[in-house]
Amino acid sequence: MMSDWLTSLKTDTPQQGFELAIMLARNAVAYTQPSPEIRERLRYIYAENADSLIATSHVVATHFQTVAAANNYWK
Amino acid sequence: MMSDWLTSLKTDTPQQGFELAIMLARNAVAYTQPSPEIRERLRYIYAENADSLIATSHVVATHFQTVAAANNYWK
Amino acid sequence: MMSDWLTSLKTDTPQQGFELAIMLARNAVAYTQPSPEIRERLRYIYAENADSLIATSHVVATHFQTVAAANNYWK
Amino acid sequence: MMSDWLTSLKTDTPQQGFELAIMLARNAVAYTQPSPEIRERLRYIYAENADSLIATSHVVATHFQTVAAANNYWK
Amino acid sequence: MMSDWLTSLKTDTPQQGFELAIMLARNAVAYTQPSPEIRERLRYIYAENADSLIATSHVVATHFQTVAAANNYWK
Amino acid sequence: MMSDWLTSLKTDTPQQGFELAIMLARNAVAYTQPSPEIRERLRYIYAENADSLIATSHVVATHFQTVAAANNYWK
Repeated sequence: MMSDWLTSLKTDTPQQGFELAIMLARNAVAYTQPSPEIRERLRYIYAENADSLIATSHVVATHFQTVAAANNYWK
Repeated sequence: MMSDWLTSLKTDTPQQGFELAIMLARNAVAYTQPSPEIRERLRYIYAENADSLIATSHVVATHFQTVAAANNYWK
Repeated sequence: MMSDWLTSLKTDTPQQGFELAIMLARNAVAYTQPSPEIRERLRYIYAENADSLIATSHVVATHFQTVAAANNYWK
Repeated sequence: MMSDWLTSLKTDTPQQGFELAIMLARNAVAYTQPSPEIRERLRYIYAENADSLIATSHVVATHFQTVAAANNYWK
Repeated sequence: MMSDWLTSLKTDTPQQGFELAIMLARNAVAYTQPSPEIRERLRYIYAENADSLIATSHVVATHFQTVAAANNYWK
Repeated sequence: MMSDWLTSLKTDTPQQGFELAIMLARNAVAYTQPSPEIRERLRYIYAENADSLIATSHVVATHFQTVAAANNYWK
């Protein structure tokens, strides 16, 4: 369905790992709702809703655990 | 109840692991709601609801932790 | 209160481990709501509610992490 | 505030570990709401609410991860 | 903003570790809502709400995982 | 999009690690809602909502797991 977008969990810096975690959170949504137009419309709604933003931040935190472990915490 | 659908957590690439995580999230739903018709009807609803999509993404993130660990983070 | 129902976290296959995770999620509910009649009535409700199904899937994902680790990811 | 109630995370069997996880989930509530009468009243409410039961099951799953790790998964 | 309140994750007993987890959960709230008066007012509300209490218990469970790991599960 | 803000997960003390976890939770929100004005407005709302504060605390707890592991629990 989707082309190659995830070939490695390794990143050079923690910040790039954090941004990868954000991408992972968003792409899971894209698998369930493939329409970019609908996702864009929904983004306008949840980006102004505090609870939705907090929930999004939680998903990122979960993925960041994975990415950080994959990079041995950039030690 | 369900035929064989999960014989290994190993995948060749992180992206295949991510897609396995999505399947795990969906199949847990199928065990609780075995009717494909009802699941299809519900999908139309939650695929347009931002909070439902974020919650789905969180489940995928949790499974992706497991799959990534099973593959030693594809190092 | 409940008879012996959990003697090991080891399973032969990942799928059996997944089904064990489902049982763990359900049995935690049974400890809080011991009446099978009430649980059956509630199941009819949440099995048709997308957000409830997603939340259930999240609990399964959390238990599957534990079961997978207990089985060394069936490597 | 509370007397000694948690001296070890070790249990003889996985089931006892699961029941310890349930106790951990309940006792966290008791620290926030010390009144047994109010907790009993609330239990009547959430024990008949599917989403509350699923949320409770999720807390148990999180504690069970800890207890299982503490017991080396009863291997 | 806040004075020194967290110098170590080590505790003598699992119960002290559990109580540290509760403190971690509360202090994260204090960073977001620094007013003790507002927090006190909110506590009256959520301490009588079953779903809020369950959610609080979940946060404690997450921190307890961290504290337990830091103490090698008090083995 | 955002300048360098995360170069390491190492901190000198657990408390600094906890404050880093808070920053991680907030910055994930900033990636989704880049407007500081809107975030400030939303903060006034959720900082007086018990359930939002508990949810925020949960995100911090998840990040604190990562930061604590990265610092070998400050042992």
